Amino acid sequence: MPALREHVDAVRLVDHHAHGCWVASGDRSRFENGLNEANIEPLAPFDSAFDTQLGFAVRAHCAPLLGLARHADADTYWRRRSEVPEPDIARLFLSAAGVSDWLIDTGFDRGVADLNGMAALAVGQVQEVVRLESVAEQAVAASGDYASAFIDILWRRTRHAVATKSILAYRGGFFGDLSDPASADVVAAATRWRDAGGTHLTDRVLLRFGLHRALELGKPLQFHVGFGDRDCNLHTANPVHLLDFLRVSGDTPVILLHCYPYEREAGYLAQAFNNVYLDGGLAINYLGARSAAFIGRLLEMAPFRKILYSSDGFGPAELHYLGAKLWRAGIAATLQRFVEADEWSAADAVRVVDLIGRENALRVYQSD
Amino acid sequence: MPALREHVDAVRLVDHHAHGCWVASGDRSRFENGLNEANIEPLAPFDSAFDTQLGFAVRAHCAPLLGLARHADADTYWRRRSEVPEPDIARLFLSAAGVSDWLIDTGFDRGVADLNGMAALAVGQVQEVVRLESVAEQAVAASGDYASAFIDILWRRTRHAVATKSILAYRGGFFGDLSDPASADVVAAATRWRDAGGTHLTDRVLLRFGLHRALELGKPLQFHVGFGDRDCNLHTANPVHLLDFLRVSGDTPVILLHCYPYEREAGYLAQAFNNVYLDGGLAINYLGARSAAFIGRLLEMAPFRKILYSSDGFGPAELHYLGAKLWRAGIAATLQRFVEADEWSAADAVRVVDLIGRENALRVYQSD
Amino acid sequence: MPALREHVDAVRLVDHHAHGCWVASGDRSRFENGLNEANIEPLAPFDSAFDTQLGFAVRAHCAPLLGLARHADADTYWRRRSEVPEPDIARLFLSAAGVSDWLIDTGFDRGVADLNGMAALAVGQVQEVVRLESVAEQAVAASGDYASAFIDILWRRTRHAVATKSILAYRGGFFGDLSDPASADVVAAATRWRDAGGTHLTDRVLLRFGLHRALELGKPLQFHVGFGDRDCNLHTANPVHLLDFLRVSGDTPVILLHCYPYEREAGYLAQAFNNVYLDGGLAINYLGARSAAFIGRLLEMAPFRKILYSSDGFGPAELHYLGAKLWRAGIAATLQRFVEADEWSAADAVRVVDLIGRENALRVYQSD
Repeated sequence: MPALREHVDAVRLVDHHAHGCWVASGDRSRFENGLNEANIEPLAPFDSAFDTQLGFAVRAHCAPLLGLARHADADTYWRRRSEVPEPDIARLFLSAAGVSDWLIDTGFDRGVADLNGMAALAVGQVQEVVRLESVAEQAVAASGDYASAFIDILWRRTRHAVATKSILAYRGGFFGDLSDPASADVVAAATRWRDAGGTHLTDRVLLRFGLHRALELGKPLQFHVGFGDRDCNLHTANPVHLLDFLRVSGDTPVILLHCYPYEREAGYLAQAFNNVYLDGGLAINYLGARSAAFIGRLLEMAPFRKILYSSDGFGPAELHYLGAKLWRAGIAATLQRFVEADEWSAADAVRVVDLIGRENALRVYQSD
Repeated sequence: MPALREHVDAVRLVDHHAHGCWVASGDRSRFENGLNEANIEPLAPFDSAFDTQLGFAVRAHCAPLLGLARHADADTYWRRRSEVPEPDIARLFLSAAGVSDWLIDTGFDRGVADLNGMAALAVGQVQEVVRLESVAEQAVAASGDYASAFIDILWRRTRHAVATKSILAYRGGFFGDLSDPASADVVAAATRWRDAGGTHLTDRVLLRFGLHRALELGKPLQFHVGFGDRDCNLHTANPVHLLDFLRVSGDTPVILLHCYPYEREAGYLAQAFNNVYLDGGLAINYLGARSAAFIGRLLEMAPFRKILYSSDGFGPAELHYLGAKLWRAGIAATLQRFVEADEWSAADAVRVVDLIGRENALRVYQSD
Repeated sequence: MPALREHVDAVRLVDHHAHGCWVASGDRSRFENGLNEANIEPLAPFDSAFDTQLGFAVRAHCAPLLGLARHADADTYWRRRSEVPEPDIARLFLSAAGVSDWLIDTGFDRGVADLNGMAALAVGQVQEVVRLESVAEQAVAASGDYASAFIDILWRRTRHAVATKSILAYRGGFFGDLSDPASADVVAAATRWRDAGGTHLTDRVLLRFGLHRALELGKPLQFHVGFGDRDCNLHTANPVHLLDFLRVSGDTPVILLHCYPYEREAGYLAQAFNNVYLDGGLAINYLGARSAAFIGRLLEMAPFRKILYSSDGFGPAELHYLGAKLWRAGIAATLQRFVEADEWSAADAVRVVDLIGRENALRVYQSD
């Protein structure tokens, strides 16, 4: 079915959740650690990030863009890559991703391009996703009432932003009460946090406060879900523990990001709530040759108008490219099997590719 | 291997867990909401239940029975379907399911045919599965001692019924103590519930009481497990939390229904306990083109004499048919791969089809 | 790709976690119960362990070694097997496994060969894995201070052993505090346990004490993870609940055994911690024709230098053989698909087979 594959390869994607890529050069250990999401220490001497599904995918799919043979070995890949200036690497891979719109989470930008930096690469439209925890840090640093400051900063910062984002998964997880806290509790919690320095928010009261202000804002609210680095207690990032929150989330779109290995639970939630969506960013890259199977699982309980595309690229621009490359290959292979089994029509397959790759995101993020 | 596929298509199934189908006509929104299990609100205006795996499966497999092309579009499907009287729809799809015996859960029959209504469609033998929570509602409405009334009603109502069913998953879930409560606690709980109106049982004491009376009754006890509508806290419907209950469940067959996405845990329990069984009803329909992969997962830890077939059809008779249609296609494809890899013999594949499709259910439900 | 399959079939495996096999003859019920991991009662009269994935795999792969046709029926298999002396069965299947090194967990050896017995079969190098709970039982039986005795026995017994092993999964599971207990608490707990008879350790203080002494010892520490018999509360054997323990585990290799159905969580942990490893022993046998899919899941988040091979064979020597046979078939099929899709190079596939089948284990267990 060449037609389907051609269509998938041609569709201009909306990457609705990514971070900045590197624009300054770095050494090999930065690169290898940039290919490991979970570990927060330098890789062990006996190990190499090239000997993983992601590393093999980099060698298979990124090497040719650097003029190397597919499956070039790790040393060859690194040598060639280090000869190319990092901004050229960035432009090369970002252009090759075939992405028309990048929605950039600016909440964590250590060492990577900011919004202007991403825009300067001129590889597509760039828009901002505002992280709630960074709004909180600005609010606690402001003088006066925390709640007012938070709301003020949130509305101001999101005037031109398309969405908000929560990393509650990294700040205690989804277990427990996520209701809107009482005003007095917010005042007390803000004072405590301010006195403690006002960084790295983990106070549940303030985290809950931020989520409910994001619901009131009405712009799509993204949640980190599932695997990330080991600061996150994986089981508390299972989206099923968001059920009570979702039950009161009204019409504000809530988007479950990444989701591995809880993609089935996330798909269930996308069926259960009119305002819940999911994607498979981050995981697709890390699964490499296994990502097609994961993409198949994303196509289970979730309605097809509730699934989005993202790369969650951060750091090496290979990740922004690979996300698109692997998604294209994986969805084409998955849908092709459905069509060959005559379970789906070819026309439906093309239509679903457009929904997930582009149209759902345009609807969700431009609806305000 | 045409022989295997032909055998699978010919086997007369026992659908050991289904509900009534519609026999009165309804509008398109009833139909589309009837294709969404999890959502309890009307579908969002931007969404359509046709754009899901289930919707695609309806268009692929049900359209031809209505004289339409395979993959007929949603509007065409709905237009044609709405021209046919609902009882004719029911007879059409129920006959095509190739089911000899329907075991009907009568505990929730809003808008669907009751036992007599199902029998009147004359598409197979109809038997009853009695829901424990409805027995409880009758017991609390009766005068006198709740415990005696419950036992009395349970035994009376199941004299000609083949099984009981618990929806504990929807009434607080499986977490926590499931032991047989003390008599005094039952008296107190029944009084409280009666005073509160005696509807929608959620009292743990009375739920536990009902389960243990069902064990004493000795007829197979079915549990809703895993995904359902969003009133259910999905993670508390993981059957692994039934472990303590199963450890005291004796010889009474306990059947874990649906199980998605906890089918692996359910399979483990079916291996761990002589009296535990599982099926994949409901999920098979909702997974559509992905149902074959799910059927493969049902064939992991569970012994082959402990797996059953059901559709869990409710409402549109398409569901009673699709359950069978997708199960036949999925098990044939799965076992064919085992045989082609020479991991299984062809004769074993045929034998396992008969066990799961028919013989296990006949053994379990006729053994009393 | 015959080259890959030939390479996989030829690699001499390190089976880094197995138990003794039977060397004395037994009846058919011993054999059938030996093919059910989870059930702790005799199989029901209506059931047969031959009618499972494992049973079918025995008939497919072990029958030919006994001179029978592939897929010989259960009665034929049993009749032939019972004609062969058990030590000959053991030598036959263990040799056929193609294993150069057996690392034997001696903590549970009821009815099976001990280290000397395994060595006497002369089918490869035999080394010991010392179970922490059996060290504890020896320590509590010794006179004097429990803590000193434990340390003393642990160091003495592991002088020639290659690893330690914890069955915490069976003794309360991974939930809750796993920090190193205070000395006074250890004294008190040891006294209580000694007074209670000093068998079947379930005291959390002493279990935690043992784990931290194993970390200090520095030899690889194996954990039973995931499914086993029904004494284990499956959900408490999810390795994600080891996160806090792993965060303080330093450099001592920690190896997550079996892992089903939590292999994705285990793979994440292997990526997140430099010292964490996983394997898929036990599960591969029980999954039979479904084991290739499981092996695919092991190859997701876990770096390829962090995955090991084991059979977890216990009792029938068929299990020690089947583990190897199914692993070879499953990894060959899985990697072949990666290579055919041009996601991996053929050379990488061969290299990863060597890492998992042999080299990772040699590095981990000989590094002290």
